[in-house]
Amino acid sequence: MRKYLLLTLLAAAYSAAAQGPTPLSASQGRVKLTFALNAAGHPTYAVAYGTRPVVNASRLGLALQEGGGFDGPLEVTGSDIKDVDDTWQPVWGEVKSIRNHYQQLTVHLRQPAAPGRQLDVVFRVFTDGVGFRYEFPHQPHLDYFVVTDELTEFAMPADHRAFWIPGDYDTNEYIYTRSRLSEVDNAAMVKNSTNIAVRVAPDPQAVATPLMLKADDGLYVNIHEAALVDYPAMQLHVDRASLRLKASLVPNAVGSMAFLHAPFHTPWRTIIVSDNAPDMLASKLILNLNEPSKIGETNWIKPMKFVGVWWEMQTGHSTWSYAASADTLDAQGQLIPSGRHAANTANVKRYIDFAAKNDIPGVLVEGWNTGWEDWFGYWKEYVFDFVTPYPDFDVPGLTSYAKSKGVSLIMHNETSGSATNYDQHLDSAYQFMNRYGYPAVKTGYVGRIIPRGEHHDGQWMVNHYNRVAEVAARSRVMIDMHEPVRPTGLHRTYPHWLAGEAARGNEYNAFTDQGNPPEHETILPFTRLMGGPMDYTPGIFKLKGYAVGAPERQVHTTLAKQLALYVTLYSPLQMAADLPENYEAHPDAFQFIKDVPVDWDDTRILAAEPGEYITTVRQAKGKDEWYLGSISNEKPRKQPLKLTFLTPGRRYEATIYADAKNADWQKNPEAYQITKKVVTSRSTLTLELAPGGGAAVSFKPVK
Amino acid sequence: MRKYLLLTLLAAAYSAAAQGPTPLSASQGRVKLTFALNAAGHPTYAVAYGTRPVVNASRLGLALQEGGGFDGPLEVTGSDIKDVDDTWQPVWGEVKSIRNHYQQLTVHLRQPAAPGRQLDVVFRVFTDGVGFRYEFPHQPHLDYFVVTDELTEFAMPADHRAFWIPGDYDTNEYIYTRSRLSEVDNAAMVKNSTNIAVRVAPDPQAVATPLMLKADDGLYVNIHEAALVDYPAMQLHVDRASLRLKASLVPNAVGSMAFLHAPFHTPWRTIIVSDNAPDMLASKLILNLNEPSKIGETNWIKPMKFVGVWWEMQTGHSTWSYAASADTLDAQGQLIPSGRHAANTANVKRYIDFAAKNDIPGVLVEGWNTGWEDWFGYWKEYVFDFVTPYPDFDVPGLTSYAKSKGVSLIMHNETSGSATNYDQHLDSAYQFMNRYGYPAVKTGYVGRIIPRGEHHDGQWMVNHYNRVAEVAARSRVMIDMHEPVRPTGLHRTYPHWLAGEAARGNEYNAFTDQGNPPEHETILPFTRLMGGPMDYTPGIFKLKGYAVGAPERQVHTTLAKQLALYVTLYSPLQMAADLPENYEAHPDAFQFIKDVPVDWDDTRILAAEPGEYITTVRQAKGKDEWYLGSISNEKPRKQPLKLTFLTPGRRYEATIYADAKNADWQKNPEAYQITKKVVTSRSTLTLELAPGGGAAVSFKPVK
Repeated sequence: MRKYLLLTLLAAAYSAAAQGPTPLSASQGRVKLTFALNAAGHPTYAVAYGTRPVVNASRLGLALQEGGGFDGPLEVTGSDIKDVDDTWQPVWGEVKSIRNHYQQLTVHLRQPAAPGRQLDVVFRVFTDGVGFRYEFPHQPHLDYFVVTDELTEFAMPADHRAFWIPGDYDTNEYIYTRSRLSEVDNAAMVKNSTNIAVRVAPDPQAVATPLMLKADDGLYVNIHEAALVDYPAMQLHVDRASLRLKASLVPNAVGSMAFLHAPFHTPWRTIIVSDNAPDMLASKLILNLNEPSKIGETNWIKPMKFVGVWWEMQTGHSTWSYAASADTLDAQGQLIPSGRHAANTANVKRYIDFAAKNDIPGVLVEGWNTGWEDWFGYWKEYVFDFVTPYPDFDVPGLTSYAKSKGVSLIMHNETSGSATNYDQHLDSAYQFMNRYGYPAVKTGYVGRIIPRGEHHDGQWMVNHYNRVAEVAARSRVMIDMHEPVRPTGLHRTYPHWLAGEAARGNEYNAFTDQGNPPEHETILPFTRLMGGPMDYTPGIFKLKGYAVGAPERQVHTTLAKQLALYVTLYSPLQMAADLPENYEAHPDAFQFIKDVPVDWDDTRILAAEPGEYITTVRQAKGKDEWYLGSISNEKPRKQPLKLTFLTPGRRYEATIYADAKNADWQKNPEAYQITKKVVTSRSTLTLELAPGGGAAVSFKPVK
Repeated sequence: MRKYLLLTLLAAAYSAAAQGPTPLSASQGRVKLTFALNAAGHPTYAVAYGTRPVVNASRLGLALQEGGGFDGPLEVTGSDIKDVDDTWQPVWGEVKSIRNHYQQLTVHLRQPAAPGRQLDVVFRVFTDGVGFRYEFPHQPHLDYFVVTDELTEFAMPADHRAFWIPGDYDTNEYIYTRSRLSEVDNAAMVKNSTNIAVRVAPDPQAVATPLMLKADDGLYVNIHEAALVDYPAMQLHVDRASLRLKASLVPNAVGSMAFLHAPFHTPWRTIIVSDNAPDMLASKLILNLNEPSKIGETNWIKPMKFVGVWWEMQTGHSTWSYAASADTLDAQGQLIPSGRHAANTANVKRYIDFAAKNDIPGVLVEGWNTGWEDWFGYWKEYVFDFVTPYPDFDVPGLTSYAKSKGVSLIMHNETSGSATNYDQHLDSAYQFMNRYGYPAVKTGYVGRIIPRGEHHDGQWMVNHYNRVAEVAARSRVMIDMHEPVRPTGLHRTYPHWLAGEAARGNEYNAFTDQGNPPEHETILPFTRLMGGPMDYTPGIFKLKGYAVGAPERQVHTTLAKQLALYVTLYSPLQMAADLPENYEAHPDAFQFIKDVPVDWDDTRILAAEPGEYITTVRQAKGKDEWYLGSISNEKPRKQPLKLTFLTPGRRYEATIYADAKNADWQKNPEAYQITKKVVTSRSTLTLELAPGGGAAVSFKPVK
């Protein structure tokens, strides 16, 4: 049915009379897109922002394995323009309503020589950027085909400053590098990032998207993609001389890029642009380019906070595994418990009790199921079965205990990268979750991928993640994917896909000395989070002395900044990541975590500069309460605020969780002070952020 | 539990005192095995049959990816000898009881230098050959490891005549070549076998196993393997100068051979030897080297005959697909039926009626499920879902219709080589079979394998086939695998795994002009069938003029030979492959197919010579009835027989289905004559076989 409709629409498009000579263009506000064939007959596009060039004339096209691809000259057989302006309501999000306003230019291209294969390029021009994609219409001489190269380029008009991580086929868990485009070289970073489980980055000039750029004249440009379905992730190869960024697709096990079947369209390539950094964070361009929700009834999808049996393992206090090794067996051949297994019934009850007491609806338990003794590093296929608990973890007992306390357990399905094994167990794994009432699952892909030769970010795995999302949707289980490809706005289409990792999370502060530098969280919203929410796992209160065997290890923020992250790092799924006892030591500060919502009616980016600072305020879903987070990099800052977002004429109690005067991420990270004051929309407030610091504020109407 | 027990046994083995200087040996009857370290310290073995060398001193060992493998000098730290003589009863088979009688030599080896890794080689010497395997004991310095090469050699003492097919990673569906070892070159055969769906044979000197050899002095030698589990298939590289055959493992997608985890053992390498060709066919060495049945209750496992909606598609009369192409859609986007779809309810009922009328318990239906319009050739992953019928195939109606007639439908699960897709649907596919009462499934793997880069005969797919067998066992569904790796006797361990293809079946006579040469079926029992039963699909009665668009195409046998194949090609699952109307035209000849059993109490190979002739007689399970098949290659023959297998003193009616006087596979294939006579164990009988002909005889006691 779907195929037929697409066919009809394409036929209609073709009936439009072929339009005149190139260039063709479309625009919206200050953004203008121009399409042209170059002297060689190759299709190109350019993007301008007012009078400023954003992308100079840049190549479009694709090479196919069979030859006869779209890498040679093409002719324009027609084009269509249409204007769209509509509004839609996300199931959850940063705002309650999203405007989708664009001008669309479709350019119909054909090979001048036989077999005359056809290719459409569809551009959507928004006030804050451009998205474009390739569409392969149904046609006689293009049926199944293999892409060997995507020729898309993004020709930068100047040597912008860039915030980048290496273009790695298997991980996004790097620290960001700030450099000019002409200086991009990821080799040392890749080599030295030994704490990342799997690194495959053969091109030292390749960077991952979302790539954040800043021109010397203050223009901000972000390049990424939207709606990554049945296609490999796009990385960007930086030609350091010409400053052209070329699409570099993640290859499959046989050295090609994508197996496709017409009719088909690629993901959207996105260019978000503004002369104002907060606009970048407020952009809904990527979400708008994704398809509407495929899930009919959504009342089971509920943004949520959770605690978890997790940080204690990350910091070395306990283990995921039950026995010291797979060889530690008793006379009956059973594993001998090491006594360090975290996911034991008594300990999990402690977390359940803590969650219940603090109105936190979820408790994640990692390491509950057999297989952890030798799960990592062997590229082995059968690791976990996803349904067999260790002997000390009582599934029925704990789920009913949690239920009696009004709390739900969150499932954990680590795959160790063995996606084939997870595929083989998907049905039984999700039936298990349904049987015991798990509302959500955290999946993981730590390790080299099986099918061997495939990569985390290749087409096969992209299809795998989407397949898992489909199974989870059918099972009505919300999902949080760790170590997947970075997101591209698919949470619009699959609103039960609450969050993901696909970046360097707070956990690196737990298990490495390097950790995440203070600027890290000021970059993430401009990069990784452009594609979707991240399960960063904020909320660490004990900022030093937490790591077994590494007493000097510390988190690279202050405590107040950890609170602020619940607002500045948007996610409908937020963990309170620290241990219950560390929260119990600071009940006043923990109040902010208890209060802060995970779903919003409105969001305002009050101040932002990548790598420097972010201040965001959000309105709670269905309530006149506002929550503000403000963070800095390693520098101290004053952040003056006008509270004009508050409802005029109404009085609010502002509770300000701030760095103490002498706070400092390095020397005095846990020093905070909490003050309250009554404010109105006409008030001003100046937050004092310590080095590596932050502040969080709740605004509740005075009754 | 299992791991622990193995550990204990190994510990016991090690407690035996290290034995004296090499060589070490074991023997049984005329077969003698000798182990020795050569001058370089490499382990070697040799096999003799009486005074005749079978295998000259040949290298043993394996190379590992991490280095430190077993490819350098080793030292002998001890050895064990034990004698075993026991008897077991197969769930079904050629005989009702099998003797397992061997002397076992275990040689414990160790690297002389650090880390001193240990390797055992275990030899079992039977009266008809030798099996040996590598065992990696549990040890400190060998845990997970990767095999990059197996160094096993089989040094032939002379330039034997060989019956071989190319060593292809993806298929066994070649015509056999007869040549001297020194003449092995598969390049032309691979190049010209364009009717085989997927061919990957990079080594022109590689041949597949089972490899059948005949020495000029009349010694027969067969090289294969037993119990292929979690390891790639072994092919043999022929060094044409030295006549050494070297193990050549089928690689995985990343260019290594096997991912292993100690404790582990490889499959058995098997060398069957005799100076009498019938002994080769009677050998139970490979079955004996397999593990006993893993299936507890076996009453659901029933050898069976079946007809099927199949030959009519193979010969071009109808199609698997419902529509002419995937693009043939009506205004509602639904497939427009071509009118040529075989698996429609009315046609299937016709086969059910035919089966019921002739007491044939099964009806296979291929092409019943959606996906056939573009199933092949695109290396696409999602092809079939294994549960959705075409609109004209009424699953509940047909299953209940079949049940009312005392017949069962046999499921068909073609995967097109997309094993990942089948894995993803295994649970639902087998639940579907259970819901509708399908007792058996025929699976298929026509096409390039997904995971892309893997091969039909590599470790990953070996694990896949075994995984499917496990799921089928849990679901109590019998299984018949087409296009899998060739079998290695695993039907002892999984007796519901009734049969497989993994060779060039009768179907090549349907869809190619080349077909199978008259000698083909005289070679198969000496090669492919050494590993297990084959679903060859015999029983074609209309031997010419059956193929649409190819009126001259013909099957390369006589009709009587087609009958004989039910005896000479052993299988517990036998198809009556021709169309009902062709059987109805020859009810007298069809009587043999109705009569012939598929399970036996006894089997005698009365005469055999590879490539020339085979005469086999078998006793029906639980009955004093005997069925004999006799076939020739392209030559006419007289086959004199002594009927001493019959119970002395008893009179039997022999019904002889023979070639007519003027029969000839090429000129007059359908000419047959049926005669009856009363015989006893003292009678003799001479069968006259036409060129490409055969004869079938049933012996039933005279009441």
